[in-house]
Amino acid sequence: MKLTKRQEEILQIVKEEGPIPGKLIAERLSLKRATLRPDLAILTMAGNLEARTRVGYSYKEIEGEKYSKWFEEHFVREYKAHPIVVKNSTSVYDAIVQIFLKDVGAIFVVNEEGHLSGVISRKDLLRACMGNQDLHGIPVSVIMTRMPKIITVKPGDTLLLAAKKMIEHHIDSLPVVQEIDKGTHTYKVVGRITKTTISRAFIELAER
Amino acid sequence: MKLTKRQEEILQIVKEEGPIPGKLIAERLSLKRATLRPDLAILTMAGNLEARTRVGYSYKEIEGEKYSKWFEEHFVREYKAHPIVVKNSTSVYDAIVQIFLKDVGAIFVVNEEGHLSGVISRKDLLRACMGNQDLHGIPVSVIMTRMPKIITVKPGDTLLLAAKKMIEHHIDSLPVVQEIDKGTHTYKVVGRITKTTISRAFIELAER
Repeated sequence: MKLTKRQEEILQIVKEEGPIPGKLIAERLSLKRATLRPDLAILTMAGNLEARTRVGYSYKEIEGEKYSKWFEEHFVREYKAHPIVVKNSTSVYDAIVQIFLKDVGAIFVVNEEGHLSGVISRKDLLRACMGNQDLHGIPVSVIMTRMPKIITVKPGDTLLLAAKKMIEHHIDSLPVVQEIDKGTHTYKVVGRITKTTISRAFIELAER
Repeated sequence: MKLTKRQEEILQIVKEEGPIPGKLIAERLSLKRATLRPDLAILTMAGNLEARTRVGYSYKEIEGEKYSKWFEEHFVREYKAHPIVVKNSTSVYDAIVQIFLKDVGAIFVVNEEGHLSGVISRKDLLRACMGNQDLHGIPVSVIMTRMPKIITVKPGDTLLLAAKKMIEHHIDSLPVVQEIDKGTHTYKVVGRITKTTISRAFIELAER
């Protein structure tokens, strides 16, 4: 719906001050209540405004805006999957077994205190495998990507931010962490977000 | 905007028969033209209908519907990346080298005629690596997933269909193919769609 300048002004006032009675909107615009009546009626019919007796007008999101809001209102915490975690001392061989057993693309490594210390991808494991080393003898801590180089997200980050981090850093999965101490990069792993998570959300968006 | 039953009926008629003059809409509903006037005015103001002199009313997509249309109007052909392809006779070792050189998750295998014969993922290569075999001596055709088991998409499929196929079949990438002969499963590989492609589209959607 194409709005007139005055209708745009009304919406702006209601966005900032709503719920607001029609009388007050008229005052803000230095117009008579009666002059505004048709505009308020149109905006209400079109679904931009909601009118409630004794309360006044409030702003209603229209469909298109709701859609872009989706990305601001969907968070990592709702989408995160269970993280697959091994210890620093786990052998590369056992890490590969975990990758196959849990059917994941990457696993997270934690230290003795249970804090995130590294990430291992299928690519890291493939590289180790090619090295013709004794896979039972090497601990994952030797081949993993280490803190503070690990890209993470927090439960309160948007899913959109998680997608952007994966694309920007060319990685397929992110550990979801809770910060224990930022100064020393101490994080607890509470989940996992992958490009599979994003692909599922993409389908969910289409099917709304 | 919440529509009345009559307004819904008007929209239905215009969707099916538009552009259609108001007089004809009134006839379809066995109502007088004058009776319909307020409803037509509301639907036009709200942006559901477009009124043109001497032509009549036609249906206009509203914002929310345009958004869901995005998924019907974005195709594999616009998003596909360059496929990394090796021959049946390529060694597993050389396939792994390609995975690292091209930084991809899977590569496609073609036969002597250049037609798709298989797909190899990082997982397939990792499994072969674990087998302690001579990676230079084994051709990829021994370890690959073969036709007709390969899940494919066509350039004219929607990106949404590609996302659904990857989620449904638990795979990270799809060869984009042109059919040469369906009966014998003969396909030419013309591209690649991955969960990275879908994640990029997800970001693009948010930034529209």
